[in-house]
Amino acid sequence: MHPYLTPLSLDELRAAKVPEDWTFGVSDRVRFGELDALRHVNNAAYLRWLEAFRLHYLRDYGISDYTKADAPKIVLKAIGLEFHKEMLLNEDYIVCGKTVSFGTTSFVMHYAVFSGDLRTTGQAVIVQLNQDGTKRPLSDQVKQTLITRDGAVARN
Amino acid sequence: MHPYLTPLSLDELRAAKVPEDWTFGVSDRVRFGELDALRHVNNAAYLRWLEAFRLHYLRDYGISDYTKADAPKIVLKAIGLEFHKEMLLNEDYIVCGKTVSFGTTSFVMHYAVFSGDLRTTGQAVIVQLNQDGTKRPLSDQVKQTLITRDGAVARN
Amino acid sequence: MHPYLTPLSLDELRAAKVPEDWTFGVSDRVRFGELDALRHVNNAAYLRWLEAFRLHYLRDYGISDYTKADAPKIVLKAIGLEFHKEMLLNEDYIVCGKTVSFGTTSFVMHYAVFSGDLRTTGQAVIVQLNQDGTKRPLSDQVKQTLITRDGAVARN
Amino acid sequence: MHPYLTPLSLDELRAAKVPEDWTFGVSDRVRFGELDALRHVNNAAYLRWLEAFRLHYLRDYGISDYTKADAPKIVLKAIGLEFHKEMLLNEDYIVCGKTVSFGTTSFVMHYAVFSGDLRTTGQAVIVQLNQDGTKRPLSDQVKQTLITRDGAVARN
Repeated sequence: MHPYLTPLSLDELRAAKVPEDWTFGVSDRVRFGELDALRHVNNAAYLRWLEAFRLHYLRDYGISDYTKADAPKIVLKAIGLEFHKEMLLNEDYIVCGKTVSFGTTSFVMHYAVFSGDLRTTGQAVIVQLNQDGTKRPLSDQVKQTLITRDGAVARN
Repeated sequence: MHPYLTPLSLDELRAAKVPEDWTFGVSDRVRFGELDALRHVNNAAYLRWLEAFRLHYLRDYGISDYTKADAPKIVLKAIGLEFHKEMLLNEDYIVCGKTVSFGTTSFVMHYAVFSGDLRTTGQAVIVQLNQDGTKRPLSDQVKQTLITRDGAVARN
Repeated sequence: MHPYLTPLSLDELRAAKVPEDWTFGVSDRVRFGELDALRHVNNAAYLRWLEAFRLHYLRDYGISDYTKADAPKIVLKAIGLEFHKEMLLNEDYIVCGKTVSFGTTSFVMHYAVFSGDLRTTGQAVIVQLNQDGTKRPLSDQVKQTLITRDGAVARN
Repeated sequence: MHPYLTPLSLDELRAAKVPEDWTFGVSDRVRFGELDALRHVNNAAYLRWLEAFRLHYLRDYGISDYTKADAPKIVLKAIGLEFHKEMLLNEDYIVCGKTVSFGTTSFVMHYAVFSGDLRTTGQAVIVQLNQDGTKRPLSDQVKQTLITRDGAVARN
């Protein structure tokens, strides 16, 4: 099995049947506390999964490591989820994500959750703020990383 | 102050500055456990708010009271949220919602969270299932209620 | 019915069959999101209830209002819960609490959750810190309030 | 590093400085969603950690795998936690647990959370029920496993 809670290699993603358009993914397993009274994963849990995924992504892509005093605040402006197939206790899953476009201070991510097959897709609009709440432009280095690694496009 | 955890009257909604296109709303207050490390309400908490709201709505509109053995299962197919202004500890808020359209077994809801001003909007696609997971058509009575109370339109 | 999310009067507590040794209580209702796959309230939800209760208590007793920059940090050192009878969806409940003893910087609280009958009891050891993490002595005024209102005893 | 979400070997436990009186542990990492507004792990999150740990334990010890229709319901009667040192974002930790005593239908577990040093300890009284809520005696095989692996003692 592939490792949990660690960005997976391309070989591990492909072995887990994740399609080739996803190159960054992190694996985890459904916990009892994520189930609701319908005995499937509650919709709110998926937002927690995407949130945990983003910390891996933001660190790996050099956007924020959440440890420095002047690290940017990464704030959601909008989020959408589509539930294709429910998830049950103890299922392994892989959250994948990538940036598809970016502006001066914000970027748009797409997400997909796989567990053998596709379970959930999502999109988010994210804005980068300074600790005082003012907008912080994405650096040229970050923009180049988003272009190179994810094929993100610049918005005008 | 208006009462918490109880559907508000039209007078109470208007007194709380909720616009006239919302006629069903329930009030609650931000709890400490809904804050995250950024000290504002975490995005996942809003899905919990909408979920709690839906139980009021589904019961009040005669769709499901969650108590009968043959009550329908109300399952999210998709959800979207837009965050207009963050929410902080102990703020009172009102979740409003209405059905804007419906098909044979599913319906589309719009949501808005007010706390003096507009904080968050949302949309959901919801499907009605039997306890065995098969789709259950909306009854004519429910459809008529959605038309009469919410101005919902039938989809073909 | 008594109001939710607001400290109840003694008359309201007695009308709700809360025993006379509890004089401070706040009412709320079980939410869908607090249930787990066993369809009863999950044990972790009770800690959230006690946490929400404490904010009412700390403000009402003049210990902390969580709003001033120099407000004390109120931190749990230990917590215990005994589950006497499970709680189900939509049940109304009242969380009661009082301080039974206090030292220089810490105090011990007892809790009880009622919903017609007794559902859960609990105890907590709580320490008052400054924002920098150092211990902050309880003021004489707070100590006197704990003695007068709750019958708390001073520990040596 | 040792693997996450999988029972650790004795060598892995010792390498992580877990004392020798703990022989069963599972590793995980603090998530952003487990922090509260004080930027440390919220007390309710620890109950989720113990819950997730118990599923590993119950399966590994042959008590319940949560998958069979006649699997016992494992219900908490009491829980206690002592917080020795707070936990912060992204810290790795190991939850350890063992059964110290058992009766006809219940057992007492001790827990410890390590992250280099000891962070939290806990105790739980757990009862085994049938799906209909009646008590189910622990099997002789389970009792023997608790004695052999954990040194549990039988209560009279």
